[in-house]
Amino acid sequence: MIIVLKQNASPADVEELTKMLESHNATVSKTVGARSTLLDVIGDTSNIDMDNVMANPAVESVRRIQEPYKKANRKFHPDNTVIKVGNAIFGGGKIPVIAGPCSVESEEQIVEVAQAVKEAGATLLRGGAFKPRTSPYSFQGLKADGIELLLEAKAATGLPIVTEIMSPAHIPLFEDVDVIQVGARNMQNFELLKELGKLNKPILLKRGLANTIEELLMSAEYIMSEGNEQVILCERGIRTFETYTRNTLDVSAVPVLKRLSHLPVIVDPSHASGITWLVEPLSLAAIACGADGLIIEVHNDPKHALSDGAQSITPADFARLMPKLGELAKACKREV
Amino acid sequence: MIIVLKQNASPADVEELTKMLESHNATVSKTVGARSTLLDVIGDTSNIDMDNVMANPAVESVRRIQEPYKKANRKFHPDNTVIKVGNAIFGGGKIPVIAGPCSVESEEQIVEVAQAVKEAGATLLRGGAFKPRTSPYSFQGLKADGIELLLEAKAATGLPIVTEIMSPAHIPLFEDVDVIQVGARNMQNFELLKELGKLNKPILLKRGLANTIEELLMSAEYIMSEGNEQVILCERGIRTFETYTRNTLDVSAVPVLKRLSHLPVIVDPSHASGITWLVEPLSLAAIACGADGLIIEVHNDPKHALSDGAQSITPADFARLMPKLGELAKACKREV
Amino acid sequence: MIIVLKQNASPADVEELTKMLESHNATVSKTVGARSTLLDVIGDTSNIDMDNVMANPAVESVRRIQEPYKKANRKFHPDNTVIKVGNAIFGGGKIPVIAGPCSVESEEQIVEVAQAVKEAGATLLRGGAFKPRTSPYSFQGLKADGIELLLEAKAATGLPIVTEIMSPAHIPLFEDVDVIQVGARNMQNFELLKELGKLNKPILLKRGLANTIEELLMSAEYIMSEGNEQVILCERGIRTFETYTRNTLDVSAVPVLKRLSHLPVIVDPSHASGITWLVEPLSLAAIACGADGLIIEVHNDPKHALSDGAQSITPADFARLMPKLGELAKACKREV
Amino acid sequence: MIIVLKQNASPADVEELTKMLESHNATVSKTVGARSTLLDVIGDTSNIDMDNVMANPAVESVRRIQEPYKKANRKFHPDNTVIKVGNAIFGGGKIPVIAGPCSVESEEQIVEVAQAVKEAGATLLRGGAFKPRTSPYSFQGLKADGIELLLEAKAATGLPIVTEIMSPAHIPLFEDVDVIQVGARNMQNFELLKELGKLNKPILLKRGLANTIEELLMSAEYIMSEGNEQVILCERGIRTFETYTRNTLDVSAVPVLKRLSHLPVIVDPSHASGITWLVEPLSLAAIACGADGLIIEVHNDPKHALSDGAQSITPADFARLMPKLGELAKACKREV
Repeated sequence: MIIVLKQNASPADVEELTKMLESHNATVSKTVGARSTLLDVIGDTSNIDMDNVMANPAVESVRRIQEPYKKANRKFHPDNTVIKVGNAIFGGGKIPVIAGPCSVESEEQIVEVAQAVKEAGATLLRGGAFKPRTSPYSFQGLKADGIELLLEAKAATGLPIVTEIMSPAHIPLFEDVDVIQVGARNMQNFELLKELGKLNKPILLKRGLANTIEELLMSAEYIMSEGNEQVILCERGIRTFETYTRNTLDVSAVPVLKRLSHLPVIVDPSHASGITWLVEPLSLAAIACGADGLIIEVHNDPKHALSDGAQSITPADFARLMPKLGELAKACKREV
Repeated sequence: MIIVLKQNASPADVEELTKMLESHNATVSKTVGARSTLLDVIGDTSNIDMDNVMANPAVESVRRIQEPYKKANRKFHPDNTVIKVGNAIFGGGKIPVIAGPCSVESEEQIVEVAQAVKEAGATLLRGGAFKPRTSPYSFQGLKADGIELLLEAKAATGLPIVTEIMSPAHIPLFEDVDVIQVGARNMQNFELLKELGKLNKPILLKRGLANTIEELLMSAEYIMSEGNEQVILCERGIRTFETYTRNTLDVSAVPVLKRLSHLPVIVDPSHASGITWLVEPLSLAAIACGADGLIIEVHNDPKHALSDGAQSITPADFARLMPKLGELAKACKREV
Repeated sequence: MIIVLKQNASPADVEELTKMLESHNATVSKTVGARSTLLDVIGDTSNIDMDNVMANPAVESVRRIQEPYKKANRKFHPDNTVIKVGNAIFGGGKIPVIAGPCSVESEEQIVEVAQAVKEAGATLLRGGAFKPRTSPYSFQGLKADGIELLLEAKAATGLPIVTEIMSPAHIPLFEDVDVIQVGARNMQNFELLKELGKLNKPILLKRGLANTIEELLMSAEYIMSEGNEQVILCERGIRTFETYTRNTLDVSAVPVLKRLSHLPVIVDPSHASGITWLVEPLSLAAIACGADGLIIEVHNDPKHALSDGAQSITPADFARLMPKLGELAKACKREV
Repeated sequence: MIIVLKQNASPADVEELTKMLESHNATVSKTVGARSTLLDVIGDTSNIDMDNVMANPAVESVRRIQEPYKKANRKFHPDNTVIKVGNAIFGGGKIPVIAGPCSVESEEQIVEVAQAVKEAGATLLRGGAFKPRTSPYSFQGLKADGIELLLEAKAATGLPIVTEIMSPAHIPLFEDVDVIQVGARNMQNFELLKELGKLNKPILLKRGLANTIEELLMSAEYIMSEGNEQVILCERGIRTFETYTRNTLDVSAVPVLKRLSHLPVIVDPSHASGITWLVEPLSLAAIACGADGLIIEVHNDPKHALSDGAQSITPADFARLMPKLGELAKACKREV
């Protein structure tokens, strides 16, 4: 951390600041320049709060040299983290595609979709059992029964399952779930993240609607700092002024996250756009800029979906999409 | 709800749509016009998902006439909801000011601040015990001990206390807390909202960083639909491209929320700006446009605050601010 | 400007950087610290491009100590700039209110509105002659004839007139206009700003929909650097994800601009909200946080307005609003 | 246009509304439903202002069925517009790449870069002569001399040239320029757009930092409505809360624009990110989702660039990038 002091900084304030920094076991080395004075703060500064440094009247500006995340930081872990789930490998050469309906609605529906997406090449099944809905009056998901149905679909197809959790209290229900998803709205539900950090199970962490790339990595750090380093990051669109699409896919976040962190990064083109005909071009764009995977909403009967029908493609659309992804991946020296 | 059908809508799709709508106990009345066909959907449409209506290929556009919130809706509850906490009255004529430090740090600190803000005219004490921090390495609050210290400050001053909750699992610890705060990051932590809806205690619900006014009201609806109608809404700044201020105070949200809902609306100028010298002008602006209250960060030693020092004013600043708020309120035919 | 060099900075890069900085007549003083090396860049650095400093591989970070604006900077001009137009004084104690229709439509309309707003206490008349419309098929304004009608309204009422310019080529038509407005869409039309900088006439400069506070001051600097220092800044709402209001009024920009600059700052509640019933609360909020004036859309027949009817209040509404502004201003030790 | 009337709409208001609509030569057909009344507005509604329809107290909501743009609308012009410039074809199968420095600085620089990018496969040369800079003290470009130097580079390489215009007054200087660029800051400089609409020359129109996809098409409509239908649209990143990248590339805008309009759509990865190492992944993403071309900043000596050095790649980087774009395009059944 490099702190630039004000020209008129009072020695008392500087001394207080130095003491505070040293209380975090940092070494502070002072450099007096022609017009400005600099404090080099050496050591693990990740637990020093920039905001409180700024609160000291002596401080002109402060800048971190070391990112505030450690376990998620590629600098300290140069190789990609590789996460295996069934036949899917996140962060390896092959690009897994997670597919399935927004909500689990019935055994028939989930098994039918599971079989269809498996046949088309999906390697994991997604389906919502606990649904975070803006309205308390909207369908809230089948909850525990939904997880049961997902497990039946898994039994029928062998596809590992990915489903969202909304409260630490539900963790026991997720014992047989292969990948636990944290939705955008819970990206900074820190109590939930801490509990998931105590599990030995991959966590799919979605970026919040208004969260920065650094905040996403800090939320991954919450999980990892508790011991669970199997975190899959997911870009799913951010909120902007543009209203044509439900959200705006921040495709730049993929290469940026891959550079800053060793964790796998996947993209959700369905939530990013909210429009079925955008799923294909956004999926292609995601792979082209280096995404390690995709999570796509597929419903056997979008018109009657209990949620997000407008953004769900059909199994037939999905079967047409997969070979295109394969050809593109090949051109990028990768494989779907 | 009014649904306009496409000119070339297939009868089959229209029939399916009608069945779906009727399955929600709505009455659908169809009118065929010169160029377009109209479906009037009558009844409680709050549990019909617009997104799924749009998923039907027959639909050109759909518009709610009735807002998706009911209990929070002024249409069904014309009078202001008035919430009494100790001597403070939210939604009445007098404007309560909640003041205190971002984090509770020690008995000495919280009692000192409590006495100072009470003397200056604050009617409630705020202080963080459970702190949602972006970094797992930042101070996370004194947790249960912090609540104990708040209760000591309450005993010493008589000020009711407001503090933030982060997980349903912590509810028992909040038994003696007067107002439970839901922070911006948890505004859509629906499982938490549902549990708070089962309490008989005022809930201070902060708007999320990227949440719309309607989403804030829908989150209030989550709490109210479980039975707890004592909800205080709080505008605390939203995320925009502007970087000078930490967030951008959406002051328009105050009159808009007051018009759409009967719930009291307060403003947090400290988090909205992140800058001490903006607390005064933003507090004045909030009252001028009709806010029912303020929540302001006050710390006896901002330089050494364990969090948010840069946005905390001192007790002396606060004592200078209160009379100005009083004069402004008087000009608005109100009182602080 | 303070530049922190990377630990591994190559001497060649540092020398090149130093040469580049000195080529801007800056003095560069280098200090080698324990861990980092510091360059103090002394002199007028406003013409040094931060982006090009960052392009040098030796640079870890760069920070301006001196803002990039000079003539608009309060540091170099501590007293408020006071701009007199007719009986209106911007930046003085009294708060001028500019009122009038979005577009000038007819002599009858503009004279009627001018008389009504004058009677209610407005001190300047606004009206659009050249209209920037999103669609080429929308009413584009009466152009030169519109200015003629404004001058007739001025003759009839004595109110100075404010109207928008869209191209340097139109400047001759504005000879008798009292205040020339630059709209949000032209805030960074630098060729227009430069030409207006050569006039001896107050310029009302509106903030762009996605422009930062610093960018607004840099655009003022374009005008001032050409010699015209009579610039009135206007906050009129920025673009965010919130859709209930047309734009989001960034009320914090008022005190921030007043602190950074000596120029007067006014607020446009009509464009900020796009909703008539929000004009009053936003006008009150603007004055409460220190605005030096207001610009409000008033139309004698909003239903038949040729533009922006939905946000125009009637003369009767305006007459009810003015006394409320007066009382509020008094409470703030000011006057309308 | 479909207008839904309020249940309590006054007949007088409805009659006034109908008259207003008919005055735009539209046919209005009324449908009275069980609970709501609908007006079908038939005919060319592009010159009817939604905002003024909303200003009528009888109106509950209004929705356009027909987009407000006509000449840019794919519905009325199903085939892609193909624009030939030298050997480059925009909107055809082959994907042109425009490359060159942000600013033209010297004959040596521009000719050297032109030769290098041509060798690597670029088919047009870009270079700024008139530079829109946030600061009046930053390098403003070589202006007319810059255009001369571009023409020399064109003479030396045969590459057609693309350069930005900032004022209608400069049009004569652009007589020999092959493609005239309108920058993001001037996207709604309507007077400039109208003048460019009178030329017989391709216009490269960049999306504004806070402009919607529809607004971009409306600005194209300004040019086309004056007779010049050779418009190339360019997505170059929008402003969001994310600060890691200079802007956020809205990659979804590419397929959306291609669907709504017949005009070619290109992407500027350099301005979208502001970071050299993001140019490659964003260029790949752009082609993968259907972009008709790219415009990339290439500088022979980024460290000494007079503008935007931090986002300019070197000719060597560019030569490495082109074959990768070629392979990706092939996988998409296209060609660079």
